[in-house]
Amino acid sequence: MTARGRFISLEGGEGAGKSTQLRALAAALRTKGLTVVETREPGGSGGAETIRQLLLTGQADRWTARAEALLFAAARADHVARLIRPALDNGAWVLCDRFLDSSRAYQGGANGLADADILALHRIGSQGFLPDRTFLLTLDEATAAARTKARDGDETDRIGGRDRSYHRRVAAAFAACAAQEPDRFRLVDASRAADIVTTQMLDLLVDLLP
Amino acid sequence: MTARGRFISLEGGEGAGKSTQLRALAAALRTKGLTVVETREPGGSGGAETIRQLLLTGQADRWTARAEALLFAAARADHVARLIRPALDNGAWVLCDRFLDSSRAYQGGANGLADADILALHRIGSQGFLPDRTFLLTLDEATAAARTKARDGDETDRIGGRDRSYHRRVAAAFAACAAQEPDRFRLVDASRAADIVTTQMLDLLVDLLP
Ligand SMILES: Nc1ncnc2c1ncn2[C@@H]1O[C@H](COP(=O)(O)OP(=O)(O)O)[C@@H](O)[C@H]1O
Ligand SMILES: Nc1ncnc2c1ncn2[C@@H]1O[C@H](COP(=O)(O)OP(=O)(O)O)[C@@H](O)[C@H]1O
Ligand SMILES: [Mg+2]
Ligand SMILES: [Mg+2]
Repeated sequence: MTARGRFISLEGGEGAGKSTQLRALAAALRTKGLTVVETREPGGSGGAETIRQLLLTGQADRWTARAEALLFAAARADHVARLIRPALDNGAWVLCDRFLDSSRAYQGGANGLADADILALHRIGSQGFLPDRTFLLTLDEATAAARTKARDGDETDRIGGRDRSYHRRVAAAFAACAAQEPDRFRLVDASRAADIVTTQMLDLLVDLLP
Repeated sequence: MTARGRFISLEGGEGAGKSTQLRALAAALRTKGLTVVETREPGGSGGAETIRQLLLTGQADRWTARAEALLFAAARADHVARLIRPALDNGAWVLCDRFLDSSRAYQGGANGLADADILALHRIGSQGFLPDRTFLLTLDEATAAARTKARDGDETDRIGGRDRSYHRRVAAAFAACAAQEPDRFRLVDASRAADIVTTQMLDLLVDLLP
């Protein structure tokens, strides 16, 4: 019998280094002999990737805030049922680039929906399924903007392109989530060199290793 | 200042005559000088029609019951915000072929989700917006099957094609909805000739006419 794997989410604003750290952390965990599945939201499974297209393309006002929150929850329900849970049951570790807390920050705090409503959607869609650990990568606005610009030039998607005050509300909402669940969350100062950040995250996972 | 229009939904199983009655009722209300918008779910607005494609095409197991319920609620949120509410505010009557109660019957009663959860999705997505009147067209199984077969041959969509016991649970759930809200619902015996059914529905709307 295989032991159930662990589910780890990486959260934070655009340019904090989530995708970079996810790759580095996956590689490091593989050298420890773990099977690691790398995934991301919105998307990560067939149905969820279809919904991702609806969410990230098109006009800024394509969806109302409420429809957007429901579509994220629908994509997450598919992702959890079709990819994340089966992988964990098979003993794999699953690393996910954004998860529920991004909905609480972007559709909730920053877009005006109540946190209780975002959590209700997650309860109905995914039976309230939570990560074993969530890393919140924190980074000041100016450094995040510089990194994003170096990466993408002036390109952005439907949600990344929202204005600065929106992204400030996102950061505040992420901080509030972390404060509410200190057992699940670990805050990580993402302003440091990438390898230092990875090392700290590995340290903050030792209690979960087999 | 225009008076707000009325929102009327038609519910019932496949083949009950919803689409037929919707057209007839719209025509009859127009002869009374009303502006009437005919619409249907899932769909009815741009975003909702995109979601409709995801819901009605593809493999039977394309979506889990939970993801399906969230997608219906997302489509409905778009439909209410973008088409139904603005039309009502402009003084039009809106006739809708299926609405919330179809989700309560198909995703709820027949597919195992709790009625309270379907209602919670509607509260979050559409602020609990309800029709001024809902007609539940009732028809025995054999007649409904014969009508559907005469209309479509053996063609069916992802949801219409579910088995007989599923469609029985749908009928029972519709009946339960109607029993819960006698003020909103009117039961209509749909086994009679179409023009008789239309006449009865018009009678059951007189109290809402301007
Ligand atoms: N610790 C770091 N120091 C400097 N640059 C970094 C660091 N981590 C990531 N970057 C760079 O910043 C940009 C944004 O990182 P990325 O991992 O794509 O962030 P996110 O996925 O959070 O948007 C990328 O170009 C990446 O190479
Ligand atoms: N009262 C009726 N008597 C006989 N046939 C009917 C009646 N109402 C509708 N039909 C026919 O039955 C079929 C199903 O009707 P339809 O309006 O498409 O049902 P629904 O939209 O509820 O699935 C259509 O071919 C329609 O012409
Ligand atoms: Mg990224
Ligand atoms: Mg029809």
